[in-house]
Amino acid sequence: MGIVVQKYGGTSVGNPERIKRVAKRIIECRKAGNMVVAVVSALGDTTDKLIELAKQITDSPPEREMDMLLSTGEQVSIALLAMAIKSMGWDVISLTGAQVGILTNNVHTKAKIIEVSCERLKKELNEGKIVIVAGFQGVTCDNEITTLGRGGSDTTAVAVAAALKADVCEIYTDVDGVYTTDPRMIPEARKLDVITYDEMLEMASLGAGVLQPRAVEFAKLNNVVLHVRSSFNYNEGTIVKGEKEVSDSGIHREKEMVVTGVAYDLNTARIGLFDVPDKPGIAKKIFTALAEKNINVDMIIQGATRNGRTDISFTVAEDDADKALEVMKEIVEEIGISGVSCDKDVAKVSIVGAGMITNPGVAAAMFQALADENINVQMISTSEIKVSCIINKKDTEKAVKSIHKKFNLEGN
Amino acid sequence: MGIVVQKYGGTSVGNPERIKRVAKRIIECRKAGNMVVAVVSALGDTTDKLIELAKQITDSPPEREMDMLLSTGEQVSIALLAMAIKSMGWDVISLTGAQVGILTNNVHTKAKIIEVSCERLKKELNEGKIVIVAGFQGVTCDNEITTLGRGGSDTTAVAVAAALKADVCEIYTDVDGVYTTDPRMIPEARKLDVITYDEMLEMASLGAGVLQPRAVEFAKLNNVVLHVRSSFNYNEGTIVKGEKEVSDSGIHREKEMVVTGVAYDLNTARIGLFDVPDKPGIAKKIFTALAEKNINVDMIIQGATRNGRTDISFTVAEDDADKALEVMKEIVEEIGISGVSCDKDVAKVSIVGAGMITNPGVAAAMFQALADENINVQMISTSEIKVSCIINKKDTEKAVKSIHKKFNLEGN
Repeated sequence: MGIVVQKYGGTSVGNPERIKRVAKRIIECRKAGNMVVAVVSALGDTTDKLIELAKQITDSPPEREMDMLLSTGEQVSIALLAMAIKSMGWDVISLTGAQVGILTNNVHTKAKIIEVSCERLKKELNEGKIVIVAGFQGVTCDNEITTLGRGGSDTTAVAVAAALKADVCEIYTDVDGVYTTDPRMIPEARKLDVITYDEMLEMASLGAGVLQPRAVEFAKLNNVVLHVRSSFNYNEGTIVKGEKEVSDSGIHREKEMVVTGVAYDLNTARIGLFDVPDKPGIAKKIFTALAEKNINVDMIIQGATRNGRTDISFTVAEDDADKALEVMKEIVEEIGISGVSCDKDVAKVSIVGAGMITNPGVAAAMFQALADENINVQMISTSEIKVSCIINKKDTEKAVKSIHKKFNLEGN
Repeated sequence: MGIVVQKYGGTSVGNPERIKRVAKRIIECRKAGNMVVAVVSALGDTTDKLIELAKQITDSPPEREMDMLLSTGEQVSIALLAMAIKSMGWDVISLTGAQVGILTNNVHTKAKIIEVSCERLKKELNEGKIVIVAGFQGVTCDNEITTLGRGGSDTTAVAVAAALKADVCEIYTDVDGVYTTDPRMIPEARKLDVITYDEMLEMASLGAGVLQPRAVEFAKLNNVVLHVRSSFNYNEGTIVKGEKEVSDSGIHREKEMVVTGVAYDLNTARIGLFDVPDKPGIAKKIFTALAEKNINVDMIIQGATRNGRTDISFTVAEDDADKALEVMKEIVEEIGISGVSCDKDVAKVSIVGAGMITNPGVAAAMFQALADENINVQMISTSEIKVSCIINKKDTEKAVKSIHKKFNLEGN
């Protein structure tokens, strides 16, 4: 008997009708001869409603109590889903994170999983039960309830799959899989049959919202095969696995495909620092000041030096832009720069592909696609499997379309 | 430092405003120099809403999953209340039933408490924290979540108070205390300063909804002093304690008071069996048949025997009446009776008082009060500290008023 771990998001279990549909889907997998563990998120907008309730009490709720509050959302889902499955005649049990033994550190509201105990899960599976697990939550060694932060349920599913050495971890969502780019923007976008962990990681970090980077990292680390697919139909989705496994499988992947996808991110802003003294310790000062305020920096570009001075630009999430500008203004004098600018009117477009490394000229082709549309590139950043450009926000759609076409990513 | 356990029902924490008010009340008790543990129920109608949600999934949800579902209600309350207290500057921690270590048997939806562990509670209290405990829930030795059934939060509070040897267990509710009778029906009803466990037990069983019989029993067994009072004002409520302690305190209790209160119960129905053969084993057959269908029988009256036959009447909750009638009809032939009747148009009025035992003529005075109003008594049942009569439902108010007056229970 194979072991399949399935994960259903909040939209998939948004109301009683949908819960019943998910129950049927789980039972089908069980009927096909698999042991099934399903990880579920809170119903629809439950989490938002609970946060709203907390806000009515206080503006700064203690994080430990937020976890106590929010973890109830998934507990409601697992109970209802187990009821639905039982009413269809199948043996089932729901388990909270604490009951499974999803051990985390004690960083409330964004805890990290340390270990998943298999004992209880295996006992229930061996008794022939379908097991429903609350996503997003865990427990510390002191029996304190924790939550895993954004995308936590994906991480729970992958961690459970890793612990059970499951054959596959199916991530059910409201889209058919991972696309060459956002299909809502570019109708020609094509669903990918397969993608490597690294590509998926870059795509996810770059704004393809279908999977959380943390969960992909966890899957890569433990070699858990992911299957991203829709809970609304039975189409095959996108398989995410290691590079070697992808090459070995062969059939799914066109040889000449150097770029796998085009991602874009509108939630970005560019901060510019002018006439930065080009001497040791300055960059450290700038980015330590930002880190101390918990501001994540994405791209960093340092220009060439003229007369002992240089320009530095970096990007942050748009929500953090004002805070970052504040921090920079505080240290203007200390580091002796001539000025600071902030531009929220930018976007980041990126190409991702494991094939890039062995194919020169990929970046050039991307710049060509942008130039063809008269789009100015403000910043460039490259890694082994991606190239990112900062452009004017209003050009985003045009840019993605042009790049997508340039690399022949359209559907057949 | 004294230890005070407080219990707040769902109405007291019905919305954010009320939660803040309860938080203030708890802090006042802490400021007065007490260690405070507050036990809370689910917000307002949360439990009803969750039951409704389950019903949309299936008509017969497994009880284990109902407990998984319903226990989230109290978990939301404790988190919000802890947030409110913290925001007012006091150190606080919320604990689920499992975290406290409220160990129960495994009878889901109506579990019984086996033991309350003090370890975690004492640790938190000794660190100077206010402790908020989820009522209504516990955990089995297999780490399964259970709920305690109707009035479970009262029971949690009493059990926690017993375990901590608290000085008092304050039960906050929406009325000022225990009254001589229902003040909504009889405006002359007087609040009692003190009442014995046994009296409270009878009052509670007879329909005075302010405290659950189970909780009172638990308090009696463990000699926990209860203080039933309103969460909406600072009036002294009603103290519930042992008979010896009540006598010893003296001051609160008028010597001549033989009857403490008058209770009534409209949720009752009378089943009559005619010409029952007066031979061994018949009563066993009748009441075993009812027990097998989980029907609780309240009063049982057997008349005198004529020609080897007798009449038997008993009362059940009105909701169970149809089911009871069904059961009786099934065994009519087997036990050879001539007929069965069912009357839902009845009510039970009762007088309760520890002083009755040593005061003859109390029952007679009650019958006199009913006769004065021309009310026919259909059934009578007595115990050491109560007398109950079944009368026509439409006469209830008249009966309670007349009895209440007869025993001089009106307020001053």
